Parts: sequence; structure tokens; C-alpha cells
Amino acid sequence: MTKLRVAIVGASGYSGEELIRLLIRHPEVEITCITSRQEAGKTAGAVFPRYRECELLFSKPDINEISEKADVAFLALPHGLAKDYAVPLLENNIKVIDISADFRLHDEAIYEKYYKTVRPAPELLKKSVYGLPEIYREEIKNGSLIACPGCYPTSILLPSIPFFKEALIDFDFMLVNSLSGVTGAGRKVDAPFIFPECNESMRAYAVTGHRHLPEIEQELQLAAGVDEIKINFIPHLLPVNRGILSTIILQAKAGVNLQTALQCLKEFYKDEMFVRVLDQGQQADTKNVTMTNVCEISCSFDERTDRIILTSAIDNLCKGASGQALQNLNIMAGFKESQGLL
Amino acid sequence: MTKLRVAIVGASGYSGEELIRLLIRHPEVEITCITSRQEAGKTAGAVFPRYRECELLFSKPDINEISEKADVAFLALPHGLAKDYAVPLLENNIKVIDISADFRLHDEAIYEKYYKTVRPAPELLKKSVYGLPEIYREEIKNGSLIACPGCYPTSILLPSIPFFKEALIDFDFMLVNSLSGVTGAGRKVDAPFIFPECNESMRAYAVTGHRHLPEIEQELQLAAGVDEIKINFIPHLLPVNRGILSTIILQAKAGVNLQTALQCLKEFYKDEMFVRVLDQGQQADTKNVTMTNVCEISCSFDERTDRIILTSAIDNLCKGASGQALQNLNIMAGFKESQGLL
Amino acid sequence: MTKLRVAIVGASGYSGEELIRLLIRHPEVEITCITSRQEAGKTAGAVFPRYRECELLFSKPDINEISEKADVAFLALPHGLAKDYAVPLLENNIKVIDISADFRLHDEAIYEKYYKTVRPAPELLKKSVYGLPEIYREEIKNGSLIACPGCYPTSILLPSIPFFKEALIDFDFMLVNSLSGVTGAGRKVDAPFIFPECNESMRAYAVTGHRHLPEIEQELQLAAGVDEIKINFIPHLLPVNRGILSTIILQAKAGVNLQTALQCLKEFYKDEMFVRVLDQGQQADTKNVTMTNVCEISCSFDERTDRIILTSAIDNLCKGASGQALQNLNIMAGFKESQGLL
Amino acid sequence: MTKLRVAIVGASGYSGEELIRLLIRHPEVEITCITSRQEAGKTAGAVFPRYRECELLFSKPDINEISEKADVAFLALPHGLAKDYAVPLLENNIKVIDISADFRLHDEAIYEKYYKTVRPAPELLKKSVYGLPEIYREEIKNGSLIACPGCYPTSILLPSIPFFKEALIDFDFMLVNSLSGVTGAGRKVDAPFIFPECNESMRAYAVTGHRHLPEIEQELQLAAGVDEIKINFIPHLLPVNRGILSTIILQAKAGVNLQTALQCLKEFYKDEMFVRVLDQGQQADTKNVTMTNVCEISCSFDERTDRIILTSAIDNLCKGASGQALQNLNIMAGFKESQGLL
Repeated sequence: MTKLRVAIVGASGYSGEELIRLLIRHPEVEITCITSRQEAGKTAGAVFPRYRECELLFSKPDINEISEKADVAFLALPHGLAKDYAVPLLENNIKVIDISADFRLHDEAIYEKYYKTVRPAPELLKKSVYGLPEIYREEIKNGSLIACPGCYPTSILLPSIPFFKEALIDFDFMLVNSLSGVTGAGRKVDAPFIFPECNESMRAYAVTGHRHLPEIEQELQLAAGVDEIKINFIPHLLPVNRGILSTIILQAKAGVNLQTALQCLKEFYKDEMFVRVLDQGQQADTKNVTMTNVCEISCSFDERTDRIILTSAIDNLCKGASGQALQNLNIMAGFKESQGLL
Repeated sequence: MTKLRVAIVGASGYSGEELIRLLIRHPEVEITCITSRQEAGKTAGAVFPRYRECELLFSKPDINEISEKADVAFLALPHGLAKDYAVPLLENNIKVIDISADFRLHDEAIYEKYYKTVRPAPELLKKSVYGLPEIYREEIKNGSLIACPGCYPTSILLPSIPFFKEALIDFDFMLVNSLSGVTGAGRKVDAPFIFPECNESMRAYAVTGHRHLPEIEQELQLAAGVDEIKINFIPHLLPVNRGILSTIILQAKAGVNLQTALQCLKEFYKDEMFVRVLDQGQQADTKNVTMTNVCEISCSFDERTDRIILTSAIDNLCKGASGQALQNLNIMAGFKESQGLL
Repeated sequence: MTKLRVAIVGASGYSGEELIRLLIRHPEVEITCITSRQEAGKTAGAVFPRYRECELLFSKPDINEISEKADVAFLALPHGLAKDYAVPLLENNIKVIDISADFRLHDEAIYEKYYKTVRPAPELLKKSVYGLPEIYREEIKNGSLIACPGCYPTSILLPSIPFFKEALIDFDFMLVNSLSGVTGAGRKVDAPFIFPECNESMRAYAVTGHRHLPEIEQELQLAAGVDEIKINFIPHLLPVNRGILSTIILQAKAGVNLQTALQCLKEFYKDEMFVRVLDQGQQADTKNVTMTNVCEISCSFDERTDRIILTSAIDNLCKGASGQALQNLNIMAGFKESQGLL
Repeated sequence: MTKLRVAIVGASGYSGEELIRLLIRHPEVEITCITSRQEAGKTAGAVFPRYRECELLFSKPDINEISEKADVAFLALPHGLAKDYAVPLLENNIKVIDISADFRLHDEAIYEKYYKTVRPAPELLKKSVYGLPEIYREEIKNGSLIACPGCYPTSILLPSIPFFKEALIDFDFMLVNSLSGVTGAGRKVDAPFIFPECNESMRAYAVTGHRHLPEIEQELQLAAGVDEIKINFIPHLLPVNRGILSTIILQAKAGVNLQTALQCLKEFYKDEMFVRVLDQGQQADTKNVTMTNVCEISCSFDERTDRIILTSAIDNLCKGASGQALQNLNIMAGFKESQGLL
């Protein structure tokens, strides 16, 4: 059997390491190229001691080399850089699965407002597919450029989209608190992220205007079929390695109760293997989903205020980044969707 | 100088230990009696290895003994038990500072609904003062029975009461997410609280109907001067020892902005030594307040939704329980309010 | 292909959960029976929320049922109970892989001294094989009763046995400090193991006479070919979920240096896929091996004292218990030794 | 009452912060000067959010200013820099309490071997006193330059010196494993110290030749009255904020047993308020000493090998650095030795 050849561009961060973890166990895929400016010349095993036996060699990123060696390229780069690879690779007929934010937002002005830089390669906008398989599976199948969702948006959109699609709620009312582990900041060597500053600490950050906000609102608008939805999204940093827990409050329409709300979720995800809708009374817990591609969702109903309270748990590096990227690859390549993810 | 003689009834839990930590450094107080059914006969040093040299001896709780030995009694008992001590001690003219929930709620029916038991000693209701010094300092001065606020309510009422008193917000809209360290569950030996079940875990619990909810609403109603306020309050358990971080969303009235909101807080607490209102852009962090009696509050404003976003951090065992209890004692006894708390 | 049918007896603890994690991904194995007195009637998914979709049903342990349903039985029981299952199952020609301590020690008197109870089923002694594959692979192949090593012994024997076999060291001098994560205590609901008592804590325990001591000494004696070896072994409890780090000091014989010591290890384990001997200057780290079956070993040499300093890292639940048990199964069944373990 | 005026030179790290924490509560001391090249112009409150109300202003370090403003200067500088301040300050009759390593070692060659730099100001050697109060209290009283012990040496010397002084052990045999929290690395912003690289990790480092080794051996030689003592000292990094746990193995001389060993410790420290010798069967635990100046020591005896096993716990920033520095100040200034430390 010929294996699908994949490249990982910008593979020296946590997302890159997670992609390597997943892909080296995937029976139908061969990693043929990993790139990193800083680590070029070293093996993956030297950079990631957990995979010390891994002899994949980091090279400097080179379009020609990637195009020759790979059928599909994962981009695990900081925002703003992805276009330098996506444009020429697509021209060379290499499919691109981008983990950065560059191709997620449809509106250039919003991108520029939140990312403080010019929207890269706006001409690729029409090509790009938002890589949330539970919502866009058909588009992903035929896509050539997949914009994987951010970690927070994944944890927030999966529990809430069904309620917007089914119009069970007031579209003007959605409030989200998200708690993230420290790998969510990437392998960032910066004072606020050293151990003694994070351990035994709980704090919010980017309380208004976090970069993931417009991406969440865009997808909610599409789900609801309306032009504007505004939410509050408040991220927090917590002392765990992996995991996001999002707590979402929605205002139910008259007639909606716990049973209808839970039924809406269960029905929406009844065929999804990576979305686990918990039974009444169970609570999502990040420790149940770390190192997996599962999004765990619990649903409660506050009868005093007629509000639906959802909590969702994902692994930010897996379902929130590299696992979902692989899920997209599996769909594009026609593999079993769970291949390499169980 | 004659010292004030204090007893700690039910001193073998985390709140009792914290009271001992604080009181043994207090120059105007002498602990004359500590009680515990299980630990009677042991020294505090044997029960709390951190204070191994402490030779205070646990005795079985006995009203007569407490009444003879103490001028003031702290009750650090589970709810439902406090009345058995409060009633006779008050009759014996011993002042009582209760850390449990038994005397906080004015409405018997609500107490019984949330605590699933009969309201103890309803006749004491009129005597009891809600022990939040920043709000009820004058009443505390003359009180004989202080009902110390719960840990969550302390972290939520301090940041939000000014906005209700000043009527800068829509009273119908308040949503709270709170994150608590594991000492918040007390020294509870139960499967969900063993280390491997809490470490690397983030989860919500009691998503609707937590016992601290009615206490919060009662005080907000009093602050706002209205009969009914309903909020959402969602507590979470996080892997830190001490600390509560509460994130509160309020809907600002027209004309209110970041400056007016921040000004409201700064003005309200300008003379309070234990409330720290942070400047614009700073974020409350539990690691800044653990082992202190400080409540740290940050204020942000989301211009897209005209919402005030408050985060507050306290140490659940100190400002959230025993530190605040001592602050109340200092006020009642006419000591410097910060005595033993710096 | 007919799958090998396996039972897990006493499957409700952490070792049982880890076996389920590994075995449900094993392509040549089918779990046909899981037992637990307390959890009988529940699904594995109900007991272990991480595997919520798992519909395996816990039953009360029953020799006849296990014998009918399984070809091999894993015993994940407390010590002293294993014989009640091992004896009749072996009579019924069911192979047994025991994770408890009951069949590890050859000397009945030593068992009884350390475990304070009568040695169960001494007649099985001759049948049992010490399940450390890197040392006893041939015996395991033909074994019917495998006594899997303890977690500490695994982490200590793998790095030290080569030096005893090759006689590069003074047999009278071996000192071991081991650090264990809290899952090492099992799912024990006991005051010293609740989160606030473990978090931000470092402490030794069982400083002399830990139950794993005689097992270590027995295997060192066999490796060295001498009748008596006495070591110091000091275990510690640390605030991580998984992992053991053992630091071992050995006195080198004249002529031994860093190069010969490192060479001894590299040569001894050159064909072993689950033992990773690090290069000079690298240090073993538990975070590199958690959730894997790898034992990572680093070797240093103190020229001032002519001592070899080894540090080894394993996952206590995987290579230290259930992963190694599966490795044993793979060897017994003629599967690829790494099957289900990568 | 005139207060003693103190300066803290290099006050922006964790040791500096800890000094500020302790000194602002000290009734007989006034901090008159804090310096930091990077933070000059900011208040202590801006740099350390935990002490946000602290209005002490960081200035650039200036000998004249320090000499005018202070009677005593604490130096919390990296090694190699202390002499630039110690020499001129001593000439100006300012007493110096140095937390760095520069004046600890009596032997220049050893300093240069371990610190890879020339011994600063060797002429000050005769003046400097090793600031371990339990051993050198009299010398400290009259000292003008105190070289405070390192954090590891403090945790190792206190439990072991009595056995060397009393000659109850074989001087050729001492092995030490030490576990340190991450603040032990200082506020170092470096990849190995970010949260995800430390959390859920246990690892040794500097397994041979750690810089604290010669300091430990020097003091043991002085205690034993011999020219050479060689030990093994193996430090480890563990995921806690504060604390060192050292485990020490000594070979007892004939006739020594648990009772004599324990008696030796209890007798040696019977008048020391900051050394807590635990009773038989109790184990030192860092969580009992964090945020205190206490060194907790437990003593066990392995009868099979006639070895004494000591474990000791300190707070690396308090008794291991700034608390001990203050203890030295109290002794020098004639204050109560525990002033500001309880």
C-alpha cells in the first residue's frame, strides 16, 4: 500500500509535536518532511525527548522540497506566515491543512482589526474551508485548503452551534468563560508562563477582544443565519498542561427545557464519534479528554432563569489543534475518520 | 494587658487550622479552648504538623467549659450544628462568630430549600449580622452573633455590590463563574477529591442551585433595594490548594463606561485596606492573595456589548472564611481592624 | 482471525483502568470479562468516564465464568487475594498474569515478614515467572503464571541489573531514592492522598522496610549470583499523577568509568524497544515516559567517589504495572511484543 | 524608637521579593533602599503584584546612596557580582549580608573550579562568616560580612552536622538526594522552566559537581575536624513552587541506633526555635514549612544496614535564603532572633 506523504511545516512547537505523536502511529500516512528554522539539522528525537527514537530530520522550510516530498502539508506556523507556504504549495497542487488563524475569517477587515496586520492572501479566501468536521464534513472532503479552528472556538462552537441551528435560544445572549491549560500559550518562553507564575495561580486575560472572538461569532452567525451575533468570551489561564473547559450560558426560548436542550445536542451529534454528549447530571471534565480527540459536553438547565448552561472539555492540542487537523486529513484522504485518533 | 479569650469550636478542619494560624500571631487575643469530637485529647501540633510546637489541647465541645474559658467563640462547624452552640453560648453572654451557613439567610423557607433541613434557631435571626465588614461594619461593631459570609459570596459580593448600590447596571442581568481550589471542599476524604482526580482536571459542579446562591441574591437585593434578583452562579473545581477567582458579567446602564465603572469601585473601597481595586489592564490573580485577607478586583468593559466584566481573587480560607472571621472579631472587640491579618 | 479472550479480575482500580485503556486498542485481543465486587452491574464507561462509550459490563468475579469466557486472566487485586483466583484458574488451564505481589517472592518467610500474612499458595511458587521481560523473556514465553514486578522494582531493576550481571560494581553498595506520583497509591480514598495534602508537598514514607524491598533484593541476588544483597530503598510521594523517578548510586569497581558504565547499559539493552538508555549528559524525566511503556535510563559517573549514578523514569501504571502485564501477554501469546503498546 | 535602616541590592528576584515580604512586617527595621537595574523607577508594588500597595521605589544601585541610606545591606545578586558592592560598602562601614555564593568558600581554587570564574575579593575571606545561625551564632553576632548558606546546603547541613560533630558516623559515607521546587531556579525565564516543561515532570540535574557541593563538604569537614570529606549530592527539580526535601544516608558507627541518633539531633537542637526534630515515625514534609523559617528533620534507622536516614524540609526562599538572612540580621542587630519570622 502506498502511504500518503505528509509534511509538517513549523513542527517544533507543541502543535507540531502533537502532530508527530499522532502521525507516527497512523498506518496510512508517512511523514516525509518536517521543517523548522531553529531546529534544522536536528532529529525530531533530539528536539522532543519523548520521541527520542524518532529519526525524522528537521530541515529548513523549502517550498520545492515540500512539494516534491509531500502530498499534503500541515502548517503549524504563527499567524501571518501561513500564506508564504499556502499560496505556492496550492499552486503546486499540494493540499494544505493550516492550524494557524490566517484563513479562518471571511472578513478581511475583522482579521486586520484583531490580528493588527494585513489579511494574507485574500484570494485564497474562497478556497478555504473552516475545518470543523462535525459542521463542514462535506466541504472538507473536497477542500484543498483547510483552516483548522482555534482551540477555544472548537470548545465553544461544538456545544453551542446546535442551539443556533435549531433556534432554541435567544441569539442576542451568549456568554462564555473558558479555562485553558498552559500549553495553550504554545512553547512560549516568557515570564508569565514560567512554573512559579502559573502554578497555584488562576487568572483571566484578554477579557475583551481575544483573537478567537471573531471566529466564534462568524460561525455562530452562519449557524443562526443572521448577520450579527455578539458574545462575551473571557479566557482564563489555569495550572494544568492540557485542556480547555468552556462554560457557556444561553437564554432558552419559551418552551425549551432540560429535556429539549439535551435532546437537541444528542440528536445533533448522534453519529459523531468525537463528540460525547453527557447524560443529565454528569459534568464535563478535561481529565477525561486529554490525549484524545473527544469533545465532552454537558448540558444543564436553570429553571429560575430559563438558561441553558453548557460545559465542554477538549484537549487543546488534540481536538483543539493537531487531532482535529488529522481528522480533517482523514476526511480529505478518504481514510476512516478515526484513523490514528483512537 | 488582659487578652481577649477566644474559643474555636470544631477546630480540626481547614478553617479551624487557618483560625489557629492567624490567632496565634494576634497580640491581643489568647486561644483558651479548641474543640473537636474526633481529635479530643490531642494537641493542635499533633493534628496540624505545620504547627507542631502548638500545645493547645483539643477537648470535646462543652458549653460550660467554653462559656467559662472564652469571651468569644468561633464556630467552624458543618451547617445545621451551629445552633446547638450558638443558642446557649449567647445565653451565657459569649459572643459568637459563626463560619457556617446557619445564620446567613433571612428567609427560613429558602434556607430549608437549599440546605434540605429545618432552619436552626430562627429566633436568632434578628440578632445575627452578616459578617461582611466592608458592608456591615457598624452592625458588626455591636453584634453578638456574626454570620460570616461563604467563600464564594465574599468573592462575588465585594466586586458587585457597589454597582447595585449605585444602580449603574441592569439588576436583571448578572452571571458569575467561580473557580475554587480544593481546600474549598474542606478536609473532605472523598473519591472526587483525591489527588489524581483533581490534578490536571477542570470541571464545573452544582451548576444550578449551589447553596451559596441564595446568600448572594439576598445581599444583592439588599444592596439594590429590590425584592428579587436572580443570577446564574456556576462554581468550578480547579487544581490549586487555595483561592477563588470569580468572573462576573454585568449589563451597564446607558452612559456607564470603563472609567465610570472603575471609578465606582475605587470610590466605594477607597478606605478599605482589604479590598484592592486594580488599575485598568491589570488582572486579579489568586496567587497574589493566597495567605492574605485581601480581595483583589479587576474591572474591564466590553464596549461591543456594554458589559462590565469583573474578576475578583481571594483566599477561600482567609478572606473567604477565617481571615474575615478574625476581621469581624477585631471590629467587635475594638482592635485595629488589620490586627493579626498583615 | 480469532482473538485471544482475556479477563481482567479486579478491574475497578487504576491498574484495571490502564489495562482497559491498552487492551481496547489491541487488535488481537478481546476483553470478554471484567470483574469488580463493588462495581458489578455497571459498565466500564460508567466507572471510568474517560472511556464512557465502553460498554463492557462489570460482573462479580466468578471462577467458572472467567474460565469459560477467557483464555488469559489478568489479576489486578490487592495482595493476599490473588491465590483465590490463580489456583482454580490455572487448574482450568487459564493462564494468569498477576499484577499483585503474591507470586513474586521465592522465599515464604520473607513474604510473610513484609506482607504480615501467610504466603498464599506456596505450591504455585515453582510455576510462577517474574514478569520482567527484558530479563526473563524465555521463561515468560512458556509461563502459565506470571508475577508482574512492582512499579518501584521495575524502575530500579532495569537500570541496575546489568551492573550486577556484569559485576562492574561492589555488590555491597546500592542506595536508591525513588519518587512516585500519587496514582502509585492506587485509587485510595484516604486523608494523606486528598489533593490539598499532596499538592505542594514532598515527603518520604516507608523509609525502611517498604514491601517492594525484598523483591528488588531477590532479583539483584539472582543477577549477581550471590546469596545476599542488602540495599537502601527510600520511596517518596510527589505531586504528579503518573511516574516514578528512581535515583540509584552504585560503587564502581576499579577501572570502570563513565564510558564503560554507559557501554554496559547500551549493550545490555541494545535490542530492547522499551528501554531507552540516554546519551551522556541527558537526564531521565518522567514527563517523557508517561502514558508509554518505556523505561528511560540515564547514567552519570562521579569521578571523585568512583560512583555510578543512574536515574530511571517509568510510568508507574504502564511499564510499572499494566503495560508490562500486556508486554508479558504479548510474549506468552506470540504476538509482536509491542502490540498495543505504541 | 529609631529603626535599623536596611537596603536590598538586587531586589527584583524571588529572594528579593521574599526579603521585602519579611522586612515590611519587621517592627524594628525600615527598608530605605531597594535597587534593581531593570526595574529602577518602578515601585515594589508594580513589580510584585502581591505587594501592590508597597510604595518602595526601585533605584539603580549606587554605593553612595546605599551607604547614606542604610546601616545594613542585603545583597541578592548573582554570584560574581557581590564583591562590587561588598567591598565599598564594608569600607563605608555598612554591614553586608550576602545571599550569593561569593563569600562562602574558604578555598579560592575550589571556588574557581565550581564557579568558573576568579574568586572575587579574596581579602574579604577572613572577614566573612558563614551565616548558618545554629552553627555560627557567636561569629555572626560580631560579623560585618555574612555569607548566607545556599538553599541546598542549609537543608543538608542542619540534619547532618550533629552526626559529624558527635562522630557517630563513618565520615567517608554520606549520600544526599535533594528535591527542589522551581523557585529554586530563581525567576529564570528559560525553556526548561516554563510550566508545561516542569508540571507532571520529575528529573535530576547537575548529578555530579553541583555548585553547592563544595560548600557542603567544607562545612562537614569543619564539623568533623578532618581535611577531606567527599559526598554524593544529587539535586532534582520537582513541580512545586517552594520547598526543598533532602534525604541523607549516613553509615552509623557500631553501637549507634535509632534512639542514639534521634537523641543526638534532639539534644543538638534543643534550644533552636527554627529547627524542628520530629519524633520517631514522623516524616518531614515541605508543605509543613513553606512560608516559614523552620527546618523540619526526621530521623530513621535501617537496622539491616546500620544506616541513619535523615530527611529534612525547608522553604528554599525562606530558611534557604531570605528568612535565614533576616535571622542573621536579627542576631547581628541584637533583635529577638525570631523577630519578623513568626
